[in-house]
Amino acid sequence: MNRLDTSSPDFRADFARLLADRDSDTARVDGPVTEILAAVRRDGDAALCEFTRRFDRMDVTPARLRISDAEIDAACAEVPLKLHAALDVAATRIESFHRAQLPADLRYVDAQGVTLGMRWTPLDAVGLYVPGGTAAYPSSVLMNALPARVAGVARLAMCVPTPDGVLNPLVLAAARRAGVSEIYRVGGAQAVGALAYGTATIPAVDRVVGPGNAYVAEAKRQVFGRVGIDSIAGPSEIVIVAADANDPRALALDLLAQAEHDPMAQAVLITPDAALAQAVQDAVEAELRTLPRAEIARASWDAHGAIITVRDLDEAVALVNEIAPEHLELVMDDPKPVFDKVRHAGAIFLGRYCPEAIGDYVGGPNHVLPTSSTARFASGLSVFDFLKRTTFIDAKADSLREIGPAAVALAQAEGLDAHALSVSVRLEDLARGSGKA
Amino acid sequence: MNRLDTSSPDFRADFARLLADRDSDTARVDGPVTEILAAVRRDGDAALCEFTRRFDRMDVTPARLRISDAEIDAACAEVPLKLHAALDVAATRIESFHRAQLPADLRYVDAQGVTLGMRWTPLDAVGLYVPGGTAAYPSSVLMNALPARVAGVARLAMCVPTPDGVLNPLVLAAARRAGVSEIYRVGGAQAVGALAYGTATIPAVDRVVGPGNAYVAEAKRQVFGRVGIDSIAGPSEIVIVAADANDPRALALDLLAQAEHDPMAQAVLITPDAALAQAVQDAVEAELRTLPRAEIARASWDAHGAIITVRDLDEAVALVNEIAPEHLELVMDDPKPVFDKVRHAGAIFLGRYCPEAIGDYVGGPNHVLPTSSTARFASGLSVFDFLKRTTFIDAKADSLREIGPAAVALAQAEGLDAHALSVSVRLEDLARGSGKA
Repeated sequence: MNRLDTSSPDFRADFARLLADRDSDTARVDGPVTEILAAVRRDGDAALCEFTRRFDRMDVTPARLRISDAEIDAACAEVPLKLHAALDVAATRIESFHRAQLPADLRYVDAQGVTLGMRWTPLDAVGLYVPGGTAAYPSSVLMNALPARVAGVARLAMCVPTPDGVLNPLVLAAARRAGVSEIYRVGGAQAVGALAYGTATIPAVDRVVGPGNAYVAEAKRQVFGRVGIDSIAGPSEIVIVAADANDPRALALDLLAQAEHDPMAQAVLITPDAALAQAVQDAVEAELRTLPRAEIARASWDAHGAIITVRDLDEAVALVNEIAPEHLELVMDDPKPVFDKVRHAGAIFLGRYCPEAIGDYVGGPNHVLPTSSTARFASGLSVFDFLKRTTFIDAKADSLREIGPAAVALAQAEGLDAHALSVSVRLEDLARGSGKA
Repeated sequence: MNRLDTSSPDFRADFARLLADRDSDTARVDGPVTEILAAVRRDGDAALCEFTRRFDRMDVTPARLRISDAEIDAACAEVPLKLHAALDVAATRIESFHRAQLPADLRYVDAQGVTLGMRWTPLDAVGLYVPGGTAAYPSSVLMNALPARVAGVARLAMCVPTPDGVLNPLVLAAARRAGVSEIYRVGGAQAVGALAYGTATIPAVDRVVGPGNAYVAEAKRQVFGRVGIDSIAGPSEIVIVAADANDPRALALDLLAQAEHDPMAQAVLITPDAALAQAVQDAVEAELRTLPRAEIARASWDAHGAIITVRDLDEAVALVNEIAPEHLELVMDDPKPVFDKVRHAGAIFLGRYCPEAIGDYVGGPNHVLPTSSTARFASGLSVFDFLKRTTFIDAKADSLREIGPAAVALAQAEGLDAHALSVSVRLEDLARGSGKA
């Protein structure tokens, strides 16, 4: 863990090292992924079955690629009622927040009599990738699928690897609650290829979302353009700005909740209170003695964790804006003045009773958020990812008379004569009083 | 040019060929671009000067990379007043439409007492790439720069190659009108590298937008993640749906206005009126005899152009939704019934007095639009490209009591104990009546 202090002469160098630690450049696996995508495009279902045999150690025929309703029924029956209820609390809140996000269409007539506007429409079909094994989180299924549903996407196809044929009941229950329309037991780059290019069994979609390993990320990079993709997520991060009286154990657990995700995760505490800094550092050590995922959390905390003491909260805000964190907690009596000054953060959690884990499950806003400082320019997943805009203009004769000549002048200056003529021929038709143009 | 008829038995095969023609897979230039980006990252300004010497045949020092205010003044003085006025008509209308696009923040308190919301903030800095030579369009400078300015982006850096040292006065005048804060005489992949990684002279930006050749497109692909990028544009396209009495020459010019962009451009007329179809075909041939860019337009029209006769307008709409065109004109007495059924299009132009060229220059909506069928999932450039969302939650003690247990249950089911503990420790503190947590 790194201890930094803004009043130390080494601070800028230490902080620069901490930021560089988040550099998002990752190893690429271009070659193998290019081959897998080409095979899926060429051989369709046969390639999917072959890769599934090779990577997930299971024999599967095209007819068995899709997980049947009976299998989903059976899996859902295994999930305890208490967890169905928890999924429902989460899903209801996520739906409600994303419904509030839905944008309105725009339409107005301007001073030149031109009707202008912008219409939002949902995508027809979306593919949702869900990782297999330990990285398969039902909460992630809800967070990826529900915004698409709320946006009005009709077809929602999910691909999830089932190594050795083992299904994850809670993932299937979450998919059913979220309204996923079809689920396939296919993973890796081959799943992304199937969703992008389509096979006899898996029709192509318009956008592929969801987390995955390096192969899945590279496959999304390569199919980008043919279909839309979401951003390539890096390791998870949190910055906690704490002031005033706080339970050090609660703050320590918030830091460890990030650290336990991944040895590459980063958890940072920023506080003007040196005594609190030390108390949280001690509480982290205490929790690491009993935490089930202590090995992962310890690796993350030792290598990437940081506690930064600052002179005041203004200094804290300046650091937050440089970090542009995925998650930001403001744990203090009155978080509003700090909140108002934050320019870059994926999601913000305000006050003492709002740990980031609430946002991971039941808060309502999406937990798929920009990592590695990309909150400078990127946003969390939302209904906007499943909608697109069509702009429109409706100009009548009088409007064309008013704004047409400027278009002709610019088109001629750019050397695009057909552009200019397409406007001027109409102006001429109008001048002649022709009823046709 | 391809003549298709929906009542022909070959229609589906012919139409499938027409769609496949738009396949967006392009040749990649990964290797050279990777080297250029690495050199810029390593050597900064020195690499920019070296590549500019090599590719643009001009000696330049770091101090001369930025185009000075005096040079911009001199260039603007060369632009005729009439063109300054036309640029201003365009800029004013573009600003006005994009201001209307600006979204509102969201903030509400739900039934569980949780305050939820979403705040939009502008990016700090944006890089605008402008191609050199004949592809340098002042209208494109307005369309890329003004939405960023309207969104509130403070710093707008433009890179434009100036082969052999030749500046384009109208491009510089457009940049000044659009509020570009700094302009550099650097082009190609090296410009994208400078904008993404920063050099001593060109500070890094958060997002790079603007059209470019294959090297620029590949460079954007490779820096994606470190900075945001816009979509990689393919050749321009238009679909015109025409019915009722129309001037065939006006429609022919609308088709040729796309065709004259690029031999790969595609212009398609869809009409239920066989006589109109023939008249437009003849009019295209007539215009091609005199059009200055006839060679380019002829190549596009012959290879990729199409006239499709349909039984009725419902058939036309179905084809439009399959094509998902960049531009769509609905040239008929009452376009509304067709307009209402279109699900996928970048921009729509309604009525007889609204040729697509109006939208290229002075309409107001953006002319940077999704090509190659990507209107299925993508949208035109807008203020949304220069804003990002931060979601927030503020839960008080009572809210945590209500929604916290579901989060604990899901975190435990996912095996993330620190997540569960970060919630339950606060619930315990509350149960004990502790004043601290």
